[in-house]
Amino acid sequence: MSLNILVTGGAGFVGSHTILELLNVGHRVICVDNLCNAFGAANSKLPESLKRVQDLTGKSVTFYDVDIRDKDGLREIFNKHKIDCVAHFAALKAVGESCRIPLQYYQNNITGTSVLLEVMAEANVFSFVYSSSATVYGEPQKLPLDEMHPTGSCTNPYGKSKYFTEEILKDLCESDPRWSVISLRYFNPVGAHKSGRIGEDPNGEPNNLMPYISQVAVGRREKLKVFGNNYDTPDGTGVRDYIHIVDLAEGHVSAIKKLAGGELKGFVVYNLGTGQGYSVLEVVDAFSKASGRAIKYEIVDRRPGDVASSYADVTLAAKQLGWKAKRGLKEIEQQDLRKVLRKRFVLDG
Amino acid sequence: MSLNILVTGGAGFVGSHTILELLNVGHRVICVDNLCNAFGAANSKLPESLKRVQDLTGKSVTFYDVDIRDKDGLREIFNKHKIDCVAHFAALKAVGESCRIPLQYYQNNITGTSVLLEVMAEANVFSFVYSSSATVYGEPQKLPLDEMHPTGSCTNPYGKSKYFTEEILKDLCESDPRWSVISLRYFNPVGAHKSGRIGEDPNGEPNNLMPYISQVAVGRREKLKVFGNNYDTPDGTGVRDYIHIVDLAEGHVSAIKKLAGGELKGFVVYNLGTGQGYSVLEVVDAFSKASGRAIKYEIVDRRPGDVASSYADVTLAAKQLGWKAKRGLKEIEQQDLRKVLRKRFVLDG
Repeated sequence: MSLNILVTGGAGFVGSHTILELLNVGHRVICVDNLCNAFGAANSKLPESLKRVQDLTGKSVTFYDVDIRDKDGLREIFNKHKIDCVAHFAALKAVGESCRIPLQYYQNNITGTSVLLEVMAEANVFSFVYSSSATVYGEPQKLPLDEMHPTGSCTNPYGKSKYFTEEILKDLCESDPRWSVISLRYFNPVGAHKSGRIGEDPNGEPNNLMPYISQVAVGRREKLKVFGNNYDTPDGTGVRDYIHIVDLAEGHVSAIKKLAGGELKGFVVYNLGTGQGYSVLEVVDAFSKASGRAIKYEIVDRRPGDVASSYADVTLAAKQLGWKAKRGLKEIEQQDLRKVLRKRFVLDG
Repeated sequence: MSLNILVTGGAGFVGSHTILELLNVGHRVICVDNLCNAFGAANSKLPESLKRVQDLTGKSVTFYDVDIRDKDGLREIFNKHKIDCVAHFAALKAVGESCRIPLQYYQNNITGTSVLLEVMAEANVFSFVYSSSATVYGEPQKLPLDEMHPTGSCTNPYGKSKYFTEEILKDLCESDPRWSVISLRYFNPVGAHKSGRIGEDPNGEPNNLMPYISQVAVGRREKLKVFGNNYDTPDGTGVRDYIHIVDLAEGHVSAIKKLAGGELKGFVVYNLGTGQGYSVLEVVDAFSKASGRAIKYEIVDRRPGDVASSYADVTLAAKQLGWKAKRGLKEIEQQDLRKVLRKRFVLDG
């Protein structure tokens, strides 16, 4: 079945990889992005990431430079296209920044989503896939984290904005049975498409481990900061569930297929993770071995809000979506390595 | 000290009573209200409630028919007036309705507040009094409820919108030390100004006990529905802390005085209640005795989300704001009674 899928925030890391997989299985993609966090392509209205997605797939993406809080802008798009399903990635996502400019986070992430949902309802579109995060679980009460684990008690505006939005989606589904919403709770997305032509390259000091290691590996930064080595974990450093971005993208394809099947109703949640946790030092070690270069690091203070361990119970997605992560740390390293050794960052690819 | 106070939602029940008290102590009031829940006065741009407030005080209110989500509309007001402090009442507030139209609740209550805060910061106004609710405490873990009691786990979109907004205010204060925010957690506001000329008169079936009793007393409804008599309370019916609307309004005057004092910084919370709980049947009984009319009632099913008992620990507001509720059930009955016996509802006063 070939669907018309509206992808918000499609120029970003997860969005662009998902669009690539959606095109590969034959869907048509209409993308909305305000480009607040993306590079424009030279001589093109398309953002660079989507230009590359088009090159890689040989298919085209319809692109609108629209902010999702712009109700009239969204309405026009829904008037022009018969949308079957919306995959909603558009959001601000840096934890540290969210503490500095919380109102912008709440307006982008909550107001934005709520305007989008309102316009969808007007257009009689009720299928929605939401980019959520394992951060909604807060401090884990038990591991692995399954979808029944309580949510809330997030410690920063980014995390709260994800949690609040899930609650809004839940309330919306309870108020109107026409909605079918899948919320995908990402663990730690890393890696890049095997071409190395699209991927993450944050500006400034990275919030996440993998781009940080990559920047150390190519000499852009001298050493990695490891935030705390006195956690209650085997080697004292934080343990996370790193999921390959292509696996994550495929998870979205499966979720959209599930929604299109029509039997799912209301608000449903799935973890997208591998089920396997690795500590910071295990990742550093693996990366050093794979690259043949020592990754220098220093131990610094814990970051407020970081939990000791977080990894997913992945049985529900396997059972109900028929989806499972196929790529492990090895593929992540190899592909990240290929990307960084070629210095194929978004700007210079 | 005479301040310029912007009051949002000032045409409503709590807003209009607060404006009256603010004018009485010599402040100047600029009111914004979108009138979504208020009656316009004949031959006047002022809503009826504010026209009566002007009559009662002999002072005038500057009124703008503006929705707080209208950023440009708000900006104009802040450009025209040098605002010292904002008291923010504008919100949708019916629990049942919030379950039917959750997006409207989130947009009015969360997006609205966040746009207002953004415009305030642009205008260098950082003093804010927020209309919160004891509903943010969720199911009480102990009684009386003090301000340290955990918040969250609200069961309906209205309650969640109050809780989420408190979290947003907390994050905002942590991000920028210029903010001084007082969140006032109302228990159950009831009663009316002693004139009987302003007060609550909801359309449709009332959500709250007092207007319901009033409507039964004047014969507009045949009998009161009592939602459950098998709670773990002395007589089995729900116990609430009924606070007289004029006490509540005075609590806002005290909070604004505190903010103007300048020593309070960041996000601070106060309960506004009496500290005394009454059951539904106690209130019915008191009301029947006071009016000399039997109030007919029937026991019906519990309402989802209602807690057994809720009443405030009021020591913090007494200590830090120098404020205390002075009026008890007797004054509430007398004034409500005067109001209903004269049939002085907003429309026919």
